[in-house]
Amino acid sequence: MLRTHTCGELRKSHVGESVTLAGWVDKYRDHAGIVFIDLRDRYGRAQIKFNLEDNSNTQKEARGLRHEDVVQVIGEVVARPDDMVNPKLATGEIEIRVNELKVLSKSATPPFLLDQPDLPNEELRLKHRVVDLRRPELQNAMVLRHKFTKIVRDYFDRHGFLDIETPILGRSSPEGARDYLVPSRVHPGCFYALPQSPQIFKQLLMCAGYDRYMQIARCFRDEDLRADRQPEFTQIDLEMAFVEQNDVLSVVDGMIAEVLKTLKGIDSPVPLPRYTHAEVMERFGSDKPDMRFGMELTDLKEIAADCGFGVFSKTIENGGRVRGLVAPQAAEKYSRKNIDALTAFVGDYGAKGLAFFRVNESGLDSPIAKFFTEEHQQAIIDKMGAKPGDLIFCVADKAPVTSAALAALRNRLGKELELFDPKAFSCLWVVEFPLLQFDAETDRWVAEHHPFCYPHPDDIELLKTDPGKVRAQSYDLVVNGYEAASGSIRIHDPAIQQQIFDLLNIKADEAERRFGFLLEGLRYGAPPHGGMALGLDRWVMLLCGYDNIRDVIAFPKTQKAADMLSGAPSMVDEKQTKELYLELNLPEE
Amino acid sequence: MLRTHTCGELRKSHVGESVTLAGWVDKYRDHAGIVFIDLRDRYGRAQIKFNLEDNSNTQKEARGLRHEDVVQVIGEVVARPDDMVNPKLATGEIEIRVNELKVLSKSATPPFLLDQPDLPNEELRLKHRVVDLRRPELQNAMVLRHKFTKIVRDYFDRHGFLDIETPILGRSSPEGARDYLVPSRVHPGCFYALPQSPQIFKQLLMCAGYDRYMQIARCFRDEDLRADRQPEFTQIDLEMAFVEQNDVLSVVDGMIAEVLKTLKGIDSPVPLPRYTHAEVMERFGSDKPDMRFGMELTDLKEIAADCGFGVFSKTIENGGRVRGLVAPQAAEKYSRKNIDALTAFVGDYGAKGLAFFRVNESGLDSPIAKFFTEEHQQAIIDKMGAKPGDLIFCVADKAPVTSAALAALRNRLGKELELFDPKAFSCLWVVEFPLLQFDAETDRWVAEHHPFCYPHPDDIELLKTDPGKVRAQSYDLVVNGYEAASGSIRIHDPAIQQQIFDLLNIKADEAERRFGFLLEGLRYGAPPHGGMALGLDRWVMLLCGYDNIRDVIAFPKTQKAADMLSGAPSMVDEKQTKELYLELNLPEE
Repeated sequence: MLRTHTCGELRKSHVGESVTLAGWVDKYRDHAGIVFIDLRDRYGRAQIKFNLEDNSNTQKEARGLRHEDVVQVIGEVVARPDDMVNPKLATGEIEIRVNELKVLSKSATPPFLLDQPDLPNEELRLKHRVVDLRRPELQNAMVLRHKFTKIVRDYFDRHGFLDIETPILGRSSPEGARDYLVPSRVHPGCFYALPQSPQIFKQLLMCAGYDRYMQIARCFRDEDLRADRQPEFTQIDLEMAFVEQNDVLSVVDGMIAEVLKTLKGIDSPVPLPRYTHAEVMERFGSDKPDMRFGMELTDLKEIAADCGFGVFSKTIENGGRVRGLVAPQAAEKYSRKNIDALTAFVGDYGAKGLAFFRVNESGLDSPIAKFFTEEHQQAIIDKMGAKPGDLIFCVADKAPVTSAALAALRNRLGKELELFDPKAFSCLWVVEFPLLQFDAETDRWVAEHHPFCYPHPDDIELLKTDPGKVRAQSYDLVVNGYEAASGSIRIHDPAIQQQIFDLLNIKADEAERRFGFLLEGLRYGAPPHGGMALGLDRWVMLLCGYDNIRDVIAFPKTQKAADMLSGAPSMVDEKQTKELYLELNLPEE
Repeated sequence: MLRTHTCGELRKSHVGESVTLAGWVDKYRDHAGIVFIDLRDRYGRAQIKFNLEDNSNTQKEARGLRHEDVVQVIGEVVARPDDMVNPKLATGEIEIRVNELKVLSKSATPPFLLDQPDLPNEELRLKHRVVDLRRPELQNAMVLRHKFTKIVRDYFDRHGFLDIETPILGRSSPEGARDYLVPSRVHPGCFYALPQSPQIFKQLLMCAGYDRYMQIARCFRDEDLRADRQPEFTQIDLEMAFVEQNDVLSVVDGMIAEVLKTLKGIDSPVPLPRYTHAEVMERFGSDKPDMRFGMELTDLKEIAADCGFGVFSKTIENGGRVRGLVAPQAAEKYSRKNIDALTAFVGDYGAKGLAFFRVNESGLDSPIAKFFTEEHQQAIIDKMGAKPGDLIFCVADKAPVTSAALAALRNRLGKELELFDPKAFSCLWVVEFPLLQFDAETDRWVAEHHPFCYPHPDDIELLKTDPGKVRAQSYDLVVNGYEAASGSIRIHDPAIQQQIFDLLNIKADEAERRFGFLLEGLRYGAPPHGGMALGLDRWVMLLCGYDNIRDVIAFPKTQKAADMLSGAPSMVDEKQTKELYLELNLPEE
């Protein structure tokens, strides 16, 4: 090695030793003719001192050192004078007095400095990712990501799971999101597809007898990207045979507990709390409630039906709902203008309005308070458990709109009112999602999760009579309001699978074309099985406490799915496309 | 869980316990009216006995069980009578007397039975991979693959390596093999490429300060496939900063030793032996010699130049070489007809002929023996260390042809003569490969490894005067005659990189277009670094003692790059290609 120690390693106990360090010039200064540099590597920083008396080339070269040059120094560890000790630095009690300097590589002027107060915009940093990746925030994220995957792999190994690789060059299926396609050269006109998940392959592994499977798997979706999505992402993928739902949840409970304990020192309640989908939708309006704080939704049906405010009473009449929440001690914090902004905000979720009431000692204060008798006002206050100084918000609309709008409002107010510790972790299971959803647009049932999800055993009969009421044996893990994992027990019974296909209006030939190889695999003895997938990138982001998924991926892509560093995607030689029997048919401008 | 124990777990100590087992019907027989089944899972097999007296549905259902049905049985563990103990089975001392049977899933008639004497051809087994994967050979391979990667990850973790993911959606580079392309929907006319290796990204990670990187990485090559290649394959990829060649080799030495010890109980010499490229080419004619046996090549220049056999003497005159090897005690084993076959065999490697001599007590016996005086014959015997009963083969040709032909012959004879223990492992390093090779066809120098490989420090001057003589700081790990890993120290010095590009006739704009983002990364402070990649699939194949790479991959592709199971690649909807601005331009027919 070109070093004897790392830059973060030396302490007072090393004083007197001759050492060789190598790293990047983090800072340099010429102090009364003496050159000092801070030498940096991913383990820390050490102060390097070049003697003034030394009029050799070393001294001259040292004077030429600039940010991000890579050097090797051989020297002696000396104690700093007491008044020069830097308590903020792990190596702050010592410095290296240099005997030899070797410049391993000079840096061009860096596009930005790691510690400059205002970092340049993200696009520029993504282009210069090599420099950006030197920032401690990103180095911490990569180290934590490594540790996280190590803990996860060790945990599943200890629990008898086999790490098995599934193909990246797979078969396209029009199911779900859009596939990335890979044209075949050997089979003209044919394409591979990059996997959106190893779903079918892991089910086949169960049929093949592999029992407990785990893979940290790269997945791909050619979708228009949201802020926390990437075209390629990584999931912790697992599947188990001969299990029921509780077996899967228990195994993952143990993993979460181990991760949080090891990485964050947090003790988790095991088993993690489990809520039905129906319950969280009622209490929080969301299937991924952030439970770091309360502020639950209240149903105001009786009062609304009976009150003098037409918007409320008509909504109930028309089969809609009136629900609300209480923002604690927020009455003074939100001006009329602030509330107008919130009204616009819930509008994005379909709500046509946002009623509000300031709670005071004598009742409710609101432009619409006059439509409510004193008794109705008191009933609202009582029902919602509101206190003077609180601010009540209500939405009257179709049931799903009240859920979506109030859930979003709840999340926003929770942050704005600082109702929770941002370092807390709240993990919970949401179980018993509906199996199917009716899509009015295409006038048919669609699978909520995917078409292989096993119905709740108590609801099998409902498949024939009331499909919308059928609960699935499916489950999501919710962390701080994010869906951090998702899974289900799968159908291993061909008769039930056929029933689901019939409901989804998937004809035999279509099923054969789309899922034929899964169905074929299920024919030769399929064990009951189930599993799940955890979003690794998102988990690392949550564990780091970051809010940008790109900060936990070494080489991420932009929201336009471009790699600013390599310039991918790029034009290719015509020879390359010709070999694939492809011609470009580009849009006019 | 739907079981209390696995099928391989029960012993005499469990007798009397009530247990629940679940698995596949491996065998069934009706013995004097009593139904027995062997229940199988990946942990083993257990004998299940249904009582004759039991005239319930259980008995009736048991009679209907067939191969590969999946069942759950609840019953009692009983000791088998002494004369019924099966010592070949781990559970052979017990059986389960069934109280309850639940058929979890019936199997259609399987396409083949796991233990049928002649397995169907591989194509059919790949199509029915789910059934094939139940065979013990494949289950062992998957388990060993899991263990191997676990050991490797743990080892590198312990040595401070970070597991960092690099992109699968990368940028196309015309360098090396053909890329798989992925058309972009967001950037019309542009393509991603699947990585042939994470080479550039891992070098950039070194520049970014990550020091020690490890990834088990999926790589892709759209090449016409050889028997032991796959379009997607997996490599153990690593890179280290602030190192010299010996540091990389030492780390990998330790990994190999740990793998062989843990998985095979083999003690490896550490450090593993290192040979220069020049030495192995001289002694074995190959840069990947199988050192499980000797049979080294001998140079016969002096004797050949001086002898009366024109083919030999003229070859030396024309600057060619005459080299040979001794097949021990093979004189009687190879008939003239056998030797004709060997002559045709070396012909495939370019050799125009294959001279042979049987060694007897009085000298050499051969159709060409008459061209050699008694002294020359004795000189050949002495030089080659041959003994009576041995068979000498010689090739006279251009130097590279003698190497290729004799190396191939050596491997073939080694196997045919059973000169080595097929279970042995011989690992060695070959170092100091030539940096460049002159390609006569295109009349230019090409990189032997890749253009980022650092020249040997002693040979920098030769770059200007005699590039063909320049040794690289590159290294291959050779196991049992296979290249099992490959790597190099990389160029971190832009001036030397430029020199190499000049030699390779890569112009500035071309270098920029092809490797621009690497060169850019190297500009802002690049540490000396190097690394390597180990072929994971091949390693598992070697550790399993298999000779088919597809037997160690869960879902492999055929030599035509097709997945027989899923039917990938396949046609896709026109809508999908249209969105990618592509039109098919298929060949006639």
